[in-house]
Amino acid sequence: MTKAPSPRTRVRRLHDKAAYDLDTIHAILDAMPVAHVGHLIDGFPVVTPTLQWREGDHIYWHGSSASRMTRAATGGPVCVTVTLTDAMVLSRSGLEHSVNYRCVMVMGTAQAVTDPALKARHLETMMEQMFPGRWPQLRPMTAQELKATAILTLPLNEASAKVSAAAPGDSDPAEDKDWPVWAGNLPITLTMGAPQPATDLAPGIPLPDHAAGYRFGKAPK
Amino acid sequence: MTKAPSPRTRVRRLHDKAAYDLDTIHAILDAMPVAHVGHLIDGFPVVTPTLQWREGDHIYWHGSSASRMTRAATGGPVCVTVTLTDAMVLSRSGLEHSVNYRCVMVMGTAQAVTDPALKARHLETMMEQMFPGRWPQLRPMTAQELKATAILTLPLNEASAKVSAAAPGDSDPAEDKDWPVWAGNLPITLTMGAPQPATDLAPGIPLPDHAAGYRFGKAPK
Repeated sequence: MTKAPSPRTRVRRLHDKAAYDLDTIHAILDAMPVAHVGHLIDGFPVVTPTLQWREGDHIYWHGSSASRMTRAATGGPVCVTVTLTDAMVLSRSGLEHSVNYRCVMVMGTAQAVTDPALKARHLETMMEQMFPGRWPQLRPMTAQELKATAILTLPLNEASAKVSAAAPGDSDPAEDKDWPVWAGNLPITLTMGAPQPATDLAPGIPLPDHAAGYRFGKAPK
Repeated sequence: MTKAPSPRTRVRRLHDKAAYDLDTIHAILDAMPVAHVGHLIDGFPVVTPTLQWREGDHIYWHGSSASRMTRAATGGPVCVTVTLTDAMVLSRSGLEHSVNYRCVMVMGTAQAVTDPALKARHLETMMEQMFPGRWPQLRPMTAQELKATAILTLPLNEASAKVSAAAPGDSDPAEDKDWPVWAGNLPITLTMGAPQPATDLAPGIPLPDHAAGYRFGKAPK
């Protein structure tokens, strides 16, 4: 059968289309902290969820220094994938059903950040990107806590993005348009529920803006 | 510093605690269709997002027969990871900040389903799990479309689950409880927006229940 003109945009690797790519890649990474890190354990690919954040042209993620993921990934080949799901796409045929999504894959050799002062600065940056103003309010980090936290990084020069953004009904080829079934998109958004204060929260501590206003993943543009 | 009693439950591998594991693993897989498939390309781990579904004690996922992922994964070692993020956990120290999540990792050697009749049945099952009643309404699948679709599967006997479910404030050790900063959880839910009908939808086609009532990922219990 004839394939409909694809509504998908495949963002090319950086060396092909640099400016557009970098903006797209940055926007996706900045909108979704959850990442899936692929790394090797005895040659077997293992995919571990974690949180990532971006500083300039590098992606960072962290974990316990004792965790299997951080130990196995350090110095080895990794692929960090960040995915936002925007809509279920219901077409007139099974084949053309799909998901509108935005995805970034970053590949390379994971490097550990080892300098304690630099590690502390990165953790502060991570926290402040998610919860502005929170870091200075926290019980200060101890040297032992810092040691227990591993931070890994990759440059974005081997990053690529894929964006699938089919408009409602556009996924169907012309010959399917009259098939009598409902077609369209079912948008997906991440919604934050009402904050749940600690049951042992001391009286008089107000809900900060960074908790009241937190949004996990920005709405699709 | 003293570590607080962990509020986390690490579900053990199936041979350790079978009944509980299987229920937990099934519930997580059934609640979240988005999966991240880790596979090898020239020995390098690559993580690709796709949709998964479960039939009994097997997980299935699909993709274009021409895609890099399905070609590279077939017959090779894979790790399929499914993650639900339930809450951001804000503690009194940076270290104890975390995410409440439910995650399943399924490892093994990916097998392709090759029999056309069996493939068709699996695709129908996938569709009907997501959108009950939709499959018979669709323009029927062609042999060429079936050929263009690859279906891969893994048994769940090498599956494991991790569940992190800290109650608000419970992530802090005793000595941090009086630190004067707001602590608690910020719940995350996936919400479906209003269905967006195809702009070229023929008049008189009603919105089906499977679109009006679709929920992407069940709410955390």
